[in-house]
Amino acid sequence: MDKSIFRKRIKGLRQNLARMDCDTAWIIQPENRRYLSGFRAEDSQITESSGSLLINESQSLLATDSRYTLDAERDAVDFEVQTLKKGLMEGLPGLLKRMGTKNLGFEGDYLTWVLHRELSERLLEDSPSVRLMPLNGLVEEMREVKDEMEIGTLEESADLMSGILDEVITGLGPGMTEKQVAWQIEGLVLESRAEGLAFPSIVASGPNSALPHAVPTDRKLEKGAPVILDVGLRLNGYCSDMTRTVFLGDPSPDFIEIYRTVREAQTAALKEVRSGVMSNYPDAVAREVINDAGFGDYFGHGLGHGVGLATHERPRLSPLKPTKLKKGMVVTVEPGIYVPGKGGVRLEEMVVIEADGPRILTRAGNFYDFAS
Amino acid sequence: MDKSIFRKRIKGLRQNLARMDCDTAWIIQPENRRYLSGFRAEDSQITESSGSLLINESQSLLATDSRYTLDAERDAVDFEVQTLKKGLMEGLPGLLKRMGTKNLGFEGDYLTWVLHRELSERLLEDSPSVRLMPLNGLVEEMREVKDEMEIGTLEESADLMSGILDEVITGLGPGMTEKQVAWQIEGLVLESRAEGLAFPSIVASGPNSALPHAVPTDRKLEKGAPVILDVGLRLNGYCSDMTRTVFLGDPSPDFIEIYRTVREAQTAALKEVRSGVMSNYPDAVAREVINDAGFGDYFGHGLGHGVGLATHERPRLSPLKPTKLKKGMVVTVEPGIYVPGKGGVRLEEMVVIEADGPRILTRAGNFYDFAS
Repeated sequence: MDKSIFRKRIKGLRQNLARMDCDTAWIIQPENRRYLSGFRAEDSQITESSGSLLINESQSLLATDSRYTLDAERDAVDFEVQTLKKGLMEGLPGLLKRMGTKNLGFEGDYLTWVLHRELSERLLEDSPSVRLMPLNGLVEEMREVKDEMEIGTLEESADLMSGILDEVITGLGPGMTEKQVAWQIEGLVLESRAEGLAFPSIVASGPNSALPHAVPTDRKLEKGAPVILDVGLRLNGYCSDMTRTVFLGDPSPDFIEIYRTVREAQTAALKEVRSGVMSNYPDAVAREVINDAGFGDYFGHGLGHGVGLATHERPRLSPLKPTKLKKGMVVTVEPGIYVPGKGGVRLEEMVVIEADGPRILTRAGNFYDFAS
Repeated sequence: MDKSIFRKRIKGLRQNLARMDCDTAWIIQPENRRYLSGFRAEDSQITESSGSLLINESQSLLATDSRYTLDAERDAVDFEVQTLKKGLMEGLPGLLKRMGTKNLGFEGDYLTWVLHRELSERLLEDSPSVRLMPLNGLVEEMREVKDEMEIGTLEESADLMSGILDEVITGLGPGMTEKQVAWQIEGLVLESRAEGLAFPSIVASGPNSALPHAVPTDRKLEKGAPVILDVGLRLNGYCSDMTRTVFLGDPSPDFIEIYRTVREAQTAALKEVRSGVMSNYPDAVAREVINDAGFGDYFGHGLGHGVGLATHERPRLSPLKPTKLKKGMVVTVEPGIYVPGKGGVRLEEMVVIEADGPRILTRAGNFYDFAS
């Protein structure tokens, strides 16, 4: 990827740090790390970091261990790679001393309470003048509005996923299990240009479709019952996320009404995903359509979320913590109705907010147009 | 699963809490939550919890949101399920009031700094008499020594994985890509009784095998070059984890020496994985074999780790933070030698520590016995 993009981001970070009176940022959150450095390694679990960035006004270090040295040097071309022998907590105070750090910004949304305490104690002993301060989602906020390269990649990611989902939906038949369909999706993603799945595919049929976070089972697809397919892939780091609900054969009148309501809610909400609108407003619009149709108790999650290096990132399109939508944000719009024991319908589009409104990145194709 | 197992665990937890002078435990770490309640939901990311347990001397609550109510009621039979409308942080103070909580134990290794601060502030306002105290890995420690049911399930998990890996290795041929092999493994796991993969399979060939955490690429397998296969599945919640290194055709003399050294290190270390031994000792034994053969710079990770509901859990078999090994622990023994740019060899067995020594749970089959 173009080096100048990372330089621009680092420059932006440095300006933000100066404003916060923070001289060094310590970045451990994997997507923030990749956004600023290009380092692609993933962390196998929260307690096993593949590396930290330390960025001040003039230096950019990537501290890692010997398992990741080669990856780090290949990916993070503008960073000086430091291979720590004894673990991060042992090595960090020395690196901070070298950088002359006074105010160290940390990611409070990611750092655990124990690691924060451990670092505080080590610094108190070693470098009592270093002060710890939370970055308060600084890098996450920088990631909210996408640049041209990011929008292009997200569009490619959504387009590639749409094509694969089209192919899978065309081949669906009664008797296939949810797991088989999920495996087929994964195979097509692996054969494609994608790095892999963005998240484990959801394939939920019949009563399982009433569970918004269903895991594929050995349940066989049946005629007339809904099948929710919620899928995404990762292309050059950028995620796609889309959902279609399909029926093999004709659905019952109940499900036609549910489907129509969800689609109506989605269409109404999509119109309001515009620059300058508060992020809770499209959610409220979708919720009203669903409430008015009498399904208000069955839409338990938020309307959508930002998509980028992470499948779920800022902004949230939900009733909570509203923020202003901006040009360049990429978000999902995914209302759903879930009737326990019976089944559900969810429809999800991924859109980029442009100057004159939202542009849908996910390709259509699989929507029903049940006549009213 | 047998309810009595969960009752025994909750009883054990309550005894431990009483000893710590902690009246209520707040459990959010997904494997700890499953261990104590049977609730199987996974958390899609750290900021999106599918539920919390609140356990005091007489009550067991599972607080979740509407997406998970059905799952929670089905899985966590001994728990009273509370569906929170406005999120955990809003609902938690009220639940703690109802439970009469004074000293609330939290998981400091998992809770983020921001959530800890948010809860502290809310409690200060709402219930200033509640004190927060870290649980210091209490439940993780309970999980270290496995009961009979757990050992049986881990054995089945390892056995199932071994059979699948055997089948995959038999079918390997030059020209297949790493991604294709990984996908084939996933397909066989999905067709099996397993819930799915325990972690994304590592299939690393040629120079990629020098990266201990390689991600499968489009690289084609070649004759004579090593292929590392590091795989695991999850069966009824319990993970397996095993690694074989195979060669298509005859390896070079260099790789024969590397392979022989790793296998010798593994065999020597396995003998020392016994009850009463400190957890850094088998690591030191393996490291000495590798050092003596002149490859000391190329073994950058610890020897192994506990396996259970998580792929990586306590105890760690590494030079750091030694603890005493005990009967009933299940751990991996996985030395490796990684020569940058050239390739690597890793061999991993999963063993249970019994009264008279280690018993290997992973099935052999794919080891080479290169004559000296």
